[in-house]
Amino acid sequence: MTLVAPDPLTRRCLSQRRKALGDALDGKPALIFAGLPRPRNYAAAAYPFRASSHFVYLAGLSIPGAAILLHGDRATLFAPPHDPDHALWHGDEPDPDEIAAWIGCHHAPLGALPAALAALAPMTLPTPDLAGCAAASRLLGRSIAPGRLDDRDRPLALAMICARLIHDEAAVAHLRLAADAAARAFSAGLAATRPDRPERDVRAAMIGALLAEGLEPSFSPIVSVHGEVLHNPSSRGVMRSGDLLLVDFGAESEGGWASDVTRTWPVSGRYSPTQRAIVEVVLAAQAAAIDALAPGARYLDVHLTACRALAAGLVDLGILRGDVDGIVEDGLHALFLPHGLGHLLGLDVHDMEDLGDLAGYAQGRARSAQFGLGYLRLDRDLTPGMALTIEPGFYQVPALLAPDSPLAMRAGDRLDRARLADFADVRGVRIEDDLLITPDGGEPLTRAIPKQINEIEHLMAGDLQPQEAP
Amino acid sequence: MTLVAPDPLTRRCLSQRRKALGDALDGKPALIFAGLPRPRNYAAAAYPFRASSHFVYLAGLSIPGAAILLHGDRATLFAPPHDPDHALWHGDEPDPDEIAAWIGCHHAPLGALPAALAALAPMTLPTPDLAGCAAASRLLGRSIAPGRLDDRDRPLALAMICARLIHDEAAVAHLRLAADAAARAFSAGLAATRPDRPERDVRAAMIGALLAEGLEPSFSPIVSVHGEVLHNPSSRGVMRSGDLLLVDFGAESEGGWASDVTRTWPVSGRYSPTQRAIVEVVLAAQAAAIDALAPGARYLDVHLTACRALAAGLVDLGILRGDVDGIVEDGLHALFLPHGLGHLLGLDVHDMEDLGDLAGYAQGRARSAQFGLGYLRLDRDLTPGMALTIEPGFYQVPALLAPDSPLAMRAGDRLDRARLADFADVRGVRIEDDLLITPDGGEPLTRAIPKQINEIEHLMAGDLQPQEAP
Repeated sequence: MTLVAPDPLTRRCLSQRRKALGDALDGKPALIFAGLPRPRNYAAAAYPFRASSHFVYLAGLSIPGAAILLHGDRATLFAPPHDPDHALWHGDEPDPDEIAAWIGCHHAPLGALPAALAALAPMTLPTPDLAGCAAASRLLGRSIAPGRLDDRDRPLALAMICARLIHDEAAVAHLRLAADAAARAFSAGLAATRPDRPERDVRAAMIGALLAEGLEPSFSPIVSVHGEVLHNPSSRGVMRSGDLLLVDFGAESEGGWASDVTRTWPVSGRYSPTQRAIVEVVLAAQAAAIDALAPGARYLDVHLTACRALAAGLVDLGILRGDVDGIVEDGLHALFLPHGLGHLLGLDVHDMEDLGDLAGYAQGRARSAQFGLGYLRLDRDLTPGMALTIEPGFYQVPALLAPDSPLAMRAGDRLDRARLADFADVRGVRIEDDLLITPDGGEPLTRAIPKQINEIEHLMAGDLQPQEAP
Repeated sequence: MTLVAPDPLTRRCLSQRRKALGDALDGKPALIFAGLPRPRNYAAAAYPFRASSHFVYLAGLSIPGAAILLHGDRATLFAPPHDPDHALWHGDEPDPDEIAAWIGCHHAPLGALPAALAALAPMTLPTPDLAGCAAASRLLGRSIAPGRLDDRDRPLALAMICARLIHDEAAVAHLRLAADAAARAFSAGLAATRPDRPERDVRAAMIGALLAEGLEPSFSPIVSVHGEVLHNPSSRGVMRSGDLLLVDFGAESEGGWASDVTRTWPVSGRYSPTQRAIVEVVLAAQAAAIDALAPGARYLDVHLTACRALAAGLVDLGILRGDVDGIVEDGLHALFLPHGLGHLLGLDVHDMEDLGDLAGYAQGRARSAQFGLGYLRLDRDLTPGMALTIEPGFYQVPALLAPDSPLAMRAGDRLDRARLADFADVRGVRIEDDLLITPDGGEPLTRAIPKQINEIEHLMAGDLQPQEAP
């Protein structure tokens, strides 16, 4: 994110967001901090700055060290002034008052914040970084820490969640931009896939496609022929002809909104019969889940719908045996799908995860103690305007399938190991799309990214004509 | 950086570094922390982890949350144990005791550190991140903060600087790897330069070249046709045919060592006569500085040598008038070269800048109050084994050249504005190489990267045959 004036739609929505949040707080003041740059080696060698998503939601921009004070219907941007030698080092960047005008806020220098706060005692939300929280603590005279919500700030957190759960027109436009950028990156990734080449070829091609558009990934991408390792960002492996390559990748729009997509394709360009069979099962589970999306539907039920579809497919293939409902009630699908079906999506790839489960779980709901289900990040009743992912998978995780694992012991002879051995070339498959809940159901934001077996094979056949290795 | 076993040379040098540092501390204990991952959006969405360079110097690896305790000739790695479900999410990563064996340390779990510290009161150094310092503060029972050196830790800081100033065989090997990776990135950048295309094409090609090797930039690259903006990482501009493109770019080796190189090339592939003239002046200033590198030479004098060469060139061109020595004594060269000639290079691109000027300035020396000279980051007598950059430049910074700027007023008619106007197509030029001080002088680590006018024009002529825009 760099400092460019937001488009008119975003600008209008920013004003509406601040107004709505101010109204929800009933005149009580709130101070939302951007946070501070995170040093990599030392203070002047920092990671690219990304403000707290709560700040970006209200400001549309990442301004290091800034804060927005909401008080009734007045929104003021407090931004650090430029150093005297700023122009020499940084050129003719916009001044804070110019930025405030872009986003429709009043402006005051950061130094005026302590006086503005006198007797206000505003609510606030922790920034993700400890240095940002330390600055906030000093200003507000109380302890604020990343990931820890003070009781007095809870009304602000709930109002913010309520606002950010339902995406406005500008948010949806940015989610589409992020999805479209991911689509272009996936095209580059498919085209860069070659047997006997390192995984990082594909990773570099996909990140490079974003960088060429001035964008960045929304999270550390996973590009791996070991899809069964769920979070595996190293991409140190080599792609072999019989492997499936799992790619979990998202873009961040210039305004800070995320996409998050997974595809699993054959390094050779052709799925083996066993790979096709499993991919079809995962696609069917995803389709069943997407069909189940509707206003009022409970996400936990959508998750279970996907689990049942996966289990049914594995029963059809002879990998699991027995009654599908019983398999899912006993949590045995987690032998192959240990994680949750998806999560909220917005300015964060796991939207508002900085607030723990307060955003993902409706009031009165909590994580299950059951293995697998306990990893579910979302259990709300769906409402138009929400965005979320649907990402079923199939993994052969050695630790879960070991004969002495609790899950395998519970499965007993409902797991046909001899049959499973036929599928040794399917270590990990995941298929993930981003969906917007509409009055009619779930609208895929990422439909431009091919996922059907014939689409992918067709694309790779076109791109895999003999050519020089890069 | 990912967790892979260091090569045998590095492993041997790691042991020697710990031994030498332990000896320098005369049996007093020291605890060096790696620091903690820096959150981007929220705790689980972090920037790629890079440990404190002091830790990397002793461990060769970036291990989040770890610490190395040096006590006499014993070095112990205290590393956080894996979570119970680590294998599910992260696969079969090396265990902490395996990592300790790689790097030749003893190993103890992080939980054993408080007991190990009982009655030890070791010296320590702040990590760059506040969260790492907060954890260190809790462990040691005293306040530790980024960029703030406690008096009791000063002997450790001085011993560490003494060690890290003189690069051992493994360090030099890694500096060469980083330089060679930068060379490949510059080739990609030259090849990606096209008139009327965005600057980010070049930036993406160069970063992409590193990513394809599993590497990352050592700092936020500058790729800009506005080279006169000294720190300008946005690359939001468009390259036009008459522009010079200034590219300041470095790679980090897998072991964490940096390169830092600047080249300035013509977008069209051909320098204009005025651009050639200025580039020749900057090249001559750089050559004079490199010639002045020798054991025992003072870096400030090398800086002044470059300033005089630059001033002489500008007098020859008629841009400045008068006596060269007088021009430099009056600091007028800073009209066109306001920054310092270079800095230390090592694990950090400005090596050990986390310790302020303690590393860059010899005892008893301090920054000048003169404009320009005050930006010099290095003033030590050179010793074989040091690595540093030599990076003179020529910039037309509007704020410095404004008739009412203090510098322009001091210059008076020694600045020929009419003549300067002939050079309007030269906004910013910098040429930077990395050098290792040897008994014979300065050995360029980055010599593989073309910088002479004919080399660059020749390369670009080869690469700029008509072809499709990407």
